[in-house]
Formats: sequence, structure tokens, C-alpha cells
Amino acid sequence: MNDIAELSRRYGAGTARPEDTVAEVYDRIARRGDDGVWILLRPREEVLAEAAALPGGPLYGIPYAVKDNIDVAGLPTTAGCPQYAYTPAESAPLVKRLRGAGAILIGKTNLDQFATGLSGTRSPYGTCESPLVPGLISGGSSSGSAVAVGAGLVPFAIGTDTAGSGRVPAALTGTVGLKPSRGLVSTLGMVPACASLDCASVFAGSVADALTVLRVIGGFEDGDPWSRPLPVPAETVAAGPLRLGIPRRPEFFGDAAAAMAFKGALARLAELGHTLVQVELEPFLKAGKLLYGGAFLAERLSAIGEFTDRHPEAVHPVTRRVLRPGRSLSAVDAFTDLHALQALRAETLPAWRRIDALVVPTVPTTYTVAELREDPIGRNRTLGHYTTFANLLDLAAISVPGGMTAIGRPHGITLLAPAGHDALIAGAAAAFHAAAGGPAAVPIRENAHAQQ
Amino acid sequence: MNDIAELSRRYGAGTARPEDTVAEVYDRIARRGDDGVWILLRPREEVLAEAAALPGGPLYGIPYAVKDNIDVAGLPTTAGCPQYAYTPAESAPLVKRLRGAGAILIGKTNLDQFATGLSGTRSPYGTCESPLVPGLISGGSSSGSAVAVGAGLVPFAIGTDTAGSGRVPAALTGTVGLKPSRGLVSTLGMVPACASLDCASVFAGSVADALTVLRVIGGFEDGDPWSRPLPVPAETVAAGPLRLGIPRRPEFFGDAAAAMAFKGALARLAELGHTLVQVELEPFLKAGKLLYGGAFLAERLSAIGEFTDRHPEAVHPVTRRVLRPGRSLSAVDAFTDLHALQALRAETLPAWRRIDALVVPTVPTTYTVAELREDPIGRNRTLGHYTTFANLLDLAAISVPGGMTAIGRPHGITLLAPAGHDALIAGAAAAFHAAAGGPAAVPIRENAHAQQ
Repeated sequence: MNDIAELSRRYGAGTARPEDTVAEVYDRIARRGDDGVWILLRPREEVLAEAAALPGGPLYGIPYAVKDNIDVAGLPTTAGCPQYAYTPAESAPLVKRLRGAGAILIGKTNLDQFATGLSGTRSPYGTCESPLVPGLISGGSSSGSAVAVGAGLVPFAIGTDTAGSGRVPAALTGTVGLKPSRGLVSTLGMVPACASLDCASVFAGSVADALTVLRVIGGFEDGDPWSRPLPVPAETVAAGPLRLGIPRRPEFFGDAAAAMAFKGALARLAELGHTLVQVELEPFLKAGKLLYGGAFLAERLSAIGEFTDRHPEAVHPVTRRVLRPGRSLSAVDAFTDLHALQALRAETLPAWRRIDALVVPTVPTTYTVAELREDPIGRNRTLGHYTTFANLLDLAAISVPGGMTAIGRPHGITLLAPAGHDALIAGAAAAFHAAAGGPAAVPIRENAHAQQ
Repeated sequence: MNDIAELSRRYGAGTARPEDTVAEVYDRIARRGDDGVWILLRPREEVLAEAAALPGGPLYGIPYAVKDNIDVAGLPTTAGCPQYAYTPAESAPLVKRLRGAGAILIGKTNLDQFATGLSGTRSPYGTCESPLVPGLISGGSSSGSAVAVGAGLVPFAIGTDTAGSGRVPAALTGTVGLKPSRGLVSTLGMVPACASLDCASVFAGSVADALTVLRVIGGFEDGDPWSRPLPVPAETVAAGPLRLGIPRRPEFFGDAAAAMAFKGALARLAELGHTLVQVELEPFLKAGKLLYGGAFLAERLSAIGEFTDRHPEAVHPVTRRVLRPGRSLSAVDAFTDLHALQALRAETLPAWRRIDALVVPTVPTTYTVAELREDPIGRNRTLGHYTTFANLLDLAAISVPGGMTAIGRPHGITLLAPAGHDALIAGAAAAFHAAAGGPAAVPIRENAHAQQ
């Protein structure tokens, strides 16, 4: 039931009704109890009534969740900060498109406050954990959306991704995390993190399902300053053999099991017929460091700085610490960093002449909630090692689960390619996922949280 | 002799030699005397020797001048500031390409210091004047390059254009000013004004000649962070009928003769078969105001701020006043302005669905040197009314002479289109120029300066 294609087939055959699916979703949510996934759950009866009168469309009768930094008309948008909350009169365009395609919104999900963080532990609405391993962080900032899918509560969920918020939690929850090219999905109606870099993202059980959603929400949006006329993938492209770039010296921060798992993933990719090409990752990683190490902090403040000035007490203490240096930077510093980024982009160009896509571990290692809290900023940075550069360098990315490591931690790989090549990496990702045990490799453990 | 195509024909037919051309260029320069055009003139004998041993190529034996904010190996680059000068070991890629195509560099030309200004009056190397009207400003910042072509000293010259520095002086000197799409011509080896917006530009007597030069210097440049893989116009595109946007309420700041001349130019465009479509220019003009009214001042300072801090006395007093506000802006302000620009870009998109190109007066009015000095900042801003928005909104532009107004001042029009459409606007510009009296409409008045 956690499969868009399968649900659609059943609806088509008349063997299931959206109301039944909705009822099951609410039952599952109730069974999990207080798992930190939801900031707002819509009333069951209201959603059941809606399910009985849906428009037809590619997502007819498919329940979903949306991260609570995205506007839904009439529901508060908190961005993980109750004092910040406002109730929009209008839904984000992507929410309208999902509604128009027949999808059913179940609720709004938890996140690292203001989408600033990759751990899922920076929220006053509680900390959700990975459904795969008790006590393991879910990753963030789209923590609730990833867990909602990973725990089998809904077939897909919408997240956002600036530094990796749509990929890190995918790896930690065993889900597919699709981060489209910047501007392919409208970010209107989304609380900005770094407006020039923000993306909406999709969590699903399979690449095919993620693409079904992307086909609904993707495409140019009039009036959105950041929208771009990029190609919407028509369907999963069966990946021919690609030249896949791999890090020359991959870094796992001491996690030998993760290193071994990545090695296995590369072997699988080679078996699939791809050519692996060693790439110097240094300019990519340097670009990534600009996101929290300089002027882009000021871009975050340009969106929420006025609020955080007026309500410092409302801001998560770690988030406050992270944002603080952005205040003292000058406009000259901002342009200096923007120029440095431009130079690093140029430095990565030669690599793209030798490869079609880049493959990295989504996360270099994993942490329990307790481990993360010992060093909430440093370990957050480690989690983003392979993700923060993507939007700065204008790359599309997709994270797919690769199974469990030898020490029982989830691991996954991310494929990246220059903006506009979303279909290319999705095709390769789908083939890898199938080879790694397929969408069924994502276990549905409804009581993972309760089992702790 | 001020015509690339004609010179090339003569060389081909064996009726002229590059040495003869060079000798004539130096004679003309000598006859004009101290006209403020040159910051550095290469020694005649050295250039004559070079002319005798040129590589073959599309610019074989064509003399040219280059603005003195562009590097030529072994010659000082002053950017109009003697204390700033340095002597590069390497030439800018565009200079290398010109050399490889057979062009002969005559010297380096005057400019508004640090390419900051549109008047040609902000240089310690003197003020050059329009060759068309004694006492009239030449426009800037590429003042010397425009006058070198307008006065018939060389067939083409290289300028730069951030706010209009390649178009305003074209209009005031009766030359064609081609400002390519951002990133079509490499800006490596150029003293940055606003690095993210800077363009190299071409001054020539005709659109065809400007395109001949663009074909040599245009095209992706490896290692240039700002280079983009845009199409290089293959040759003048014979312009079919276009939908040309025109300002709904054009502004001439009280210059009735300029208003009448623009009206005449529009009538000519209509006669050529184009459809004129009224466009609301407001979002374009608002975008233009961001260049000197906010964060982009800090982008200028990110390049030269350290120098101007150490040597405030070396900076032209007007330039100092212009740059000062950039110091007090924060990184948050920078991103706020960048986001405002992004929103204005989106606001201009609907216009581009209704039109193929935009037509504006290049300058709304003209000033004498004395008039300009009465209000050096305000009148400079007026000169840029129709030019400053182009690079901010990522447009290609070309300014062509339209003859003289009823009060004997030069006027011209600029055609603009989204980046990548350089050939389209060049085609329409060439047809307009021919209809307006053709390249021959540019009078060669060798002693305009001496006649005052």
C-alpha cells in the first residue's frame, strides 16, 4: 500500500477506494503514537470527506504529507517555530498542483527549525527518529516528511532541500530522496532558507513514484522569481551505461562499515555497466563550505533575520548559534563569497566533461540522537559533507537507499548531474535501487519508534 | 579606410599593406593632437614592425584600440588611475584572440576611472569629447575607445560595459556599440567593475564590422568563471519582421529634439516591417536603479575597495562619492537586493513573451562637458536611464547611430534581447543603420577636437 503505482492500479480496478486508504493511513499514524513526525495532522473526518470527492489525476487518491515550511491555505505554517507561525490564505503552487492531480494531504511535518540543519534534532516539536534503527537520527531538515514515508505512513511526502534536507533524511530513513534542479519545482509559498538555492524535494519508496510526483509539481511557474524553464522528466529513463564520477579519496569520518558499503555500491554500479571515473572532489567540497561558512548565512537572515531579532527566545539555541556570524558580514563580503563560488563552479567544469553524473555516499556516516547532541554543529556539518555543494553548484540530485551496512546502519548513494539532467540521474538511480533489492528493500516497520 | 571589410578587400587585392594603414593611423592621431583619447600609444616604429609580420586571419592588418582596463602583456593597465597601475605578464584572452586573428593594437584608451561613470569626464588622463559636436561629452566609461572609432582613428575598438559604458559613448560619438550577452566574451584580464555583470564591448563603424570582431573574441573561455557557452553570431542575420517593444511613455528629460528623433527612428523601424508593441518599462528601470542605488556598489568595492581604502587620494572625487555608500551595506542588504533583482527579472518575463526585442533611445538626452560638470552624478544617472538595466536583466544590446537631432545633437537607438539573441538584434540593428543612412552616416571629422 506504500506504492503509488500499486494504489493507482487498485483504484483503477475498483478493488480499493481512497477513503479506505485514508482510513488505513490514520490507523497507522495512531499505532505509531507520538513519533514527532507531525506538527499538524488534519482531522480524519475532514480528510475522509475530501477523499470521497477527489478530482481524477495521476495522483488520484494518494495520501501525502508536506513539510511545515510550505504553505497550505488555512493551515498554519510554522517552519518549526511556533512564534513564527502564520496562516496563509493561499496554498503553495506545488500544493495546488498536487490537489489538482488528486493527491490527499494528511498533514504537515516536523523539521529542523527554519530548515536550518540536517539532523532532525533542532525542533521544538520534538525529534523524530529513523524508522530503521531505534535511536538513530532521522536526518533533517525534512525529518517528518522522510519518516512519514520511511515508516510507511504515506506513499510520498514533500520536503525542501537547500543544503541536503531532502537527501540526508532519505539516506537515514531508507527512502528515495529526489532533489530536482533548482527552479524545476516552484518554491513560491515556501519559507525561504537561502532563497537563491532552495528547492522543494520529494520522498518516496521508489524512484518511479518520486518521478510520478515530480511530473505533477515540476514545470515553470509564472510569477516565481526562481522558476526556470527546465525539462520535466517524462518517465524513468532506462539508464544506458554512463560515465560515473566517484570521489578519488572518499571520506567516511572513520566509519569503516559505511566505507565498505559504498565500495559495494560502486561494484554494483560497475556491474550495471557504468564506467567509474575518479574525480577530484576538492572544488565541490570547497563550494559546499560556503553555505554555512560565509555570506550565505546572511541570505538566511535576509528572510528571517527581522523575526529572529525581535524574538531571539523563539529561535532554537543551536540555530541561533549557527546564524549569528551572518550578522557581522558586509555586502562586500557577500560579493567576495559569491565570486569565490563562481570561481569554484568554473573549477568543477572540467570534471563534467569527463563524466555524465557524480556518485557519492549520501551521508558519510550516521549518528544516534545522543551522538548528534554531543556535537550538534560539527556532526551536522559532517552529515552534509556530500550534500551541501549541490545547490550552490546548480546540480540535480537523487538519493537512493543501498541497504544496511555491516554494523546495521542505513546507507545510500546520491547521483548528481548539472541542472536539467534530472531524468538522467533518475534512470540510473532506479536501476541501482532495483539491483540493491528494489523498492521492497525499504522495510515498513510501523512500530520502530514504539519498540525502543 | 575606417571599414574592416574594405581594408580586408584591399589587402586581399594587394592594393594596400598593413604598414600603410598603420602609418596612416599614426598620422591621423598626430593631426588630432592632444584629444584625451589615449592613455598609452604604442611606439609607431614598434607597431609598424609588427604590421609587417602579422598572422593571417579575419582581422589581418586591422588596427584597433583597447580600453585601459583590459590587460595587454607588458603594458601598464591603469583603469584610469595612475596609482592603481600594474603591468600584466599576460594579455586578456580577448586581446590574444585579436592578435591571433591578425589585428594590430595601436594603444590603450582613456576611461571614466575604474569604468565607473557614463560621461567620459571622470579621468585624471583628461576628458575626451564627441567628434561630432565640439564641447559635447564623449560619453563613457569607454570614452577613448568610442572616440578613437568615431573620429576615424581606428576601424574598431574594445570597450567594456557594465552600466552602459559600451553604449552611451557609442550614441554620443556616432558609432555602433555592441554589448554582447554576459559571458559571451571573456572578461578575464579585465579590471572588474561589477564582476558578475561586466561585459567586453565593441565599437565599430558598422554592425557588420562589430560582428566580425565579435566572431573573433566571442565564445566560451576555459577557466573564466563568468564565461557561458552562448551562440556566437555566425554573420549578420537579415532581420525578418520582429515584434519590437517600445517604451509606453519614453522619457527624454525635457529634450524635445531627442524625443522627436526617437519618434522618427520608430517610424523607420515600422517602415522596415517591424511591429511596434508598447511595453511598460517600469520593472526594467527599477532593476537599473539597483546598480548604483544599493548592493552592487559593494560588488565594485569587492574588486577595488582595498585599493581605494589605502589610496583615497588616488580616486577621482566623484567616483569616491559614488562608491561611498557601498561601504555601509551589510551582507543581508546584499541578498535583499539580489532577491529584489530576481523578482524584477520575473516581472519583465511577460513582456518577452509579447516581443522579440526591445527598442529604446540609447541616451535620453545629451550634455556638453560644462553641463555634465554642473551635476556630475545626477546627469550621469540620466545618461544611463536606458542602459543600466541591461546587464542586471541579462540582456544583449546593440546601439546604432540614428543621425542628428533637430538641435544638432547625435542620437541613436539600442536594441535589446535576452542573452543568447545577439544575432537577432544585430540583424535588426544593421537594417536600421542602413535605413538611417548607413555606416557612411558616421562622419569622419579628423579635426573636430582641434576646431573648437
